[in-house]
Amino acid sequence: MSKTVLVVYAHPEPTSLTRRFVSETVQTLEQQGHKVLQSDLYGMGWKATFDEGDFPGRINHNRLSFIQESEHAYTTGQQTQDVVTEQHKLLAADAVIFHFPLWWFGMPAILKGWIDRVYAYGFAYGYKGEGNRYRYGDGILKGKRALLSVMVGGPADDYTPRGINGPLDELLFPITHGALFFPGLDVLPTHAIYGAGKLEEAAAEAEFAAWRLRLQHIFKEAPIPFRRQNSEDYQHNILADHIAAGETGLTIHVDN
Amino acid sequence: MSKTVLVVYAHPEPTSLTRRFVSETVQTLEQQGHKVLQSDLYGMGWKATFDEGDFPGRINHNRLSFIQESEHAYTTGQQTQDVVTEQHKLLAADAVIFHFPLWWFGMPAILKGWIDRVYAYGFAYGYKGEGNRYRYGDGILKGKRALLSVMVGGPADDYTPRGINGPLDELLFPITHGALFFPGLDVLPTHAIYGAGKLEEAAAEAEFAAWRLRLQHIFKEAPIPFRRQNSEDYQHNILADHIAAGETGLTIHVDN
Repeated sequence: MSKTVLVVYAHPEPTSLTRRFVSETVQTLEQQGHKVLQSDLYGMGWKATFDEGDFPGRINHNRLSFIQESEHAYTTGQQTQDVVTEQHKLLAADAVIFHFPLWWFGMPAILKGWIDRVYAYGFAYGYKGEGNRYRYGDGILKGKRALLSVMVGGPADDYTPRGINGPLDELLFPITHGALFFPGLDVLPTHAIYGAGKLEEAAAEAEFAAWRLRLQHIFKEAPIPFRRQNSEDYQHNILADHIAAGETGLTIHVDN
Repeated sequence: MSKTVLVVYAHPEPTSLTRRFVSETVQTLEQQGHKVLQSDLYGMGWKATFDEGDFPGRINHNRLSFIQESEHAYTTGQQTQDVVTEQHKLLAADAVIFHFPLWWFGMPAILKGWIDRVYAYGFAYGYKGEGNRYRYGDGILKGKRALLSVMVGGPADDYTPRGINGPLDELLFPITHGALFFPGLDVLPTHAIYGAGKLEEAAAEAEFAAWRLRLQHIFKEAPIPFRRQNSEDYQHNILADHIAAGETGLTIHVDN
């Protein structure tokens, strides 16, 4: 069945590994009969910085409160057009794929600024004006899927369970859990390419082939089993005592 | 003894809690006789997006490789002036304090863009042209201290060891360990204010008083005991078998 996929990417160089992955994604999904929407953040000249320019119709001209102005702009239809367009793309999509290089163990600023600005109050948080009620598996993007495709400069060993950088899945938890699962997206396991800067052409081709294969199944694959806030796993937003008893940390929020 | 402290902050509203903390910081440190340097990212109109504009003298005009161009710009003195100025501030500082609101479990894009752009190849990574040799406790900023002062919108419970967001220290690990300890900074425990948007004035005053007290000791306080790469704790960048034996994850890189 034909689906709509939004591809958000953050690299300005068309021949970069990131962008070559983007091309593979677009081509493969279109060949499958899916509709592809694109957000080429560098190409669009996306404004990274969330600031007063995001609120052309301020509710309070004396003091800038981002939450208050974000809610006001969203609920009164006074957001900037670039933000509205991205929100519409998210709502139209059945899945969102993010392609970016890992910079300092996180998103490039331009992509972080896409999250900061597009994730309005009332949209990605404060959904239905009910504070934190709809969150972590529940929210405006519920039923849709998300997937990170990350180009990592360093070697895979550094990101292993005991590697010096820390495990990639835990480093990306603020994104996968905190930014994607939060407004309801089902998040697929991250697709990482290590040693991305030094990949030989034959190895790159093999990675593209593996990625094309994976793309065939993104609507069937099992997402990361993050625990849902509005389940019995949590009591007042604390993990119930009998779940992962005695354990702490990021990984207890995954039902492995 | 008089020291130099760089204060980097990311909020445009002068009356915000973030900015009131900044004022307390500047005033308290100056009263102690320290020299304070400031980087008011919104006020400076800091360019968040790392792009071709960062490389006025390209080594390769056909293809934009960030690492290659960053190394070339840094080693040949062709960086942009805004980046050079921030690097000089870092080199002049004995400590760096970052004040920012937590947005989607990370830095606002403008601050992430400060890291992305100021952290040149040859400066914050690839130090001395030796790849990953000087890293995690060793590097150009060795001997200096860093401290995050973070305004968190949500309640403290959500960030406890079993809270639904994950523990704050682990969510910030990509910053404290990955961006600060990486180029050699000794990182002090994060100073977090929860429920920052709803803090009553009396509670805010109490927090400022606690912060002023803490600032008296930032040059004596014990840093987070992150394990040093160039110690016997690691073998080829993997934690040695006898350290935190059988454990995995971010927290094993802290010698608690």
